[in-house]
Amino acid sequence: MAEPQNRGARRALYFDDLKVGDRFISGEHALDAEQIKAFARQFDPQPFHTDEEAAKGTFFQGLAASGWHTAAITMRLLVDSGMPLADGVIGSGGELHWAQPTRPDDVLHVESEVMEIVPSRSKPGRGMVQMRCRTLNQRGELLQSFTPKLVVAKRPDAAG
Amino acid sequence: MAEPQNRGARRALYFDDLKVGDRFISGEHALDAEQIKAFARQFDPQPFHTDEEAAKGTFFQGLAASGWHTAAITMRLLVDSGMPLADGVIGSGGELHWAQPTRPDDVLHVESEVMEIVPSRSKPGRGMVQMRCRTLNQRGELLQSFTPKLVVAKRPDAAG
Repeated sequence: MAEPQNRGARRALYFDDLKVGDRFISGEHALDAEQIKAFARQFDPQPFHTDEEAAKGTFFQGLAASGWHTAAITMRLLVDSGMPLADGVIGSGGELHWAQPTRPDDVLHVESEVMEIVPSRSKPGRGMVQMRCRTLNQRGELLQSFTPKLVVAKRPDAAG
Repeated sequence: MAEPQNRGARRALYFDDLKVGDRFISGEHALDAEQIKAFARQFDPQPFHTDEEAAKGTFFQGLAASGWHTAAITMRLLVDSGMPLADGVIGSGGELHWAQPTRPDDVLHVESEVMEIVPSRSKPGRGMVQMRCRTLNQRGELLQSFTPKLVVAKRPDAAG
C-alpha cells in the first residue's frame, strides 16, 4: 500500500495518475452544535438533530448530526483537499454507511483509498475509479464509510 | 403490492405496522438555481454546481445539483411527509445511486417501499426495515435511488 499523499495536497490528478492503493488524507472540519442544528432545520428536522434537550430521550441519547450532514461535510473535505482530481470529484453513488453518530465536538477528516480502476470502453476520455472514503473524528473513530464510483478524466493528451 | 398511502400521509407507524410491499409517497419540493448554488457553496463548491456559465463546459453540460443536495432534499421529504414513522427516520446507511443529474427546474418527490423486515434478536424494542426510496422529478425521471436500513421502534405496548 502506498504512503498517503500529504494532508491536503492539491496536485491535480488524472485517471492516468491513479493506481490501486493510492491514498489521500483531507484537511479537517470542526463541527459544533450550531452547525448540526442549522443543517437539520433545513434538511433533517428531527428532535435528535435539532434540540439538545429533546435528543437526550431518543435513540441517539444526545444531539447528533444528520448522517446527510456528515456526508455533506465529507464531500466538502474531498473537494477542498481530500481528492485532488483535475476535473473535479464526480460520482454516481456508492455504498454509504454511518458507523456511529457524529457529535457536536467532533473534528472530521477523510481518508480515501483507490480500490479499483476501470477504463471506459465507450468513453475514451475518462474512466471509472472505485474509491473508499472513510470519515474519522479526532479520536480516529470511524463515523462514515462511503465507496463511490468516480468518473475521472484522462490526461487530455492521453485521451483518444 | 399494496396501494401507496395517501401522498403526504402523517399517520405514525411502528415496526408492527409495516409489511413488505407497503408504499409511501412524499409531498414535493421545487428546486431552483439559487438553492443549488447555495448548497454547493457550502458543501460541494465545484463549478458545475455553483455557476451556470462555467457548468456548460463540464461533464454535466449545465448547472446540476450536488448529489448530496438531492440526498438532503430526499431526507427532508421523508421526514416531513414521506415515511410516517413514530420515532423518526433513523438509518445506518445503504446503497446510494444517482441515476441522472438533478436540474434547477426539477420538482422532487420520493416514493418508498418496504423491501424486507428483520426483527432484532438483541433489541426487543425495535427492528430493522430495509426500504427502497426513489427520488423522482415532475416527469417521473429517476434522480436518486437509496436503499436504507432503518431502525424502527416497536409499538410500546408490544415491545418486550
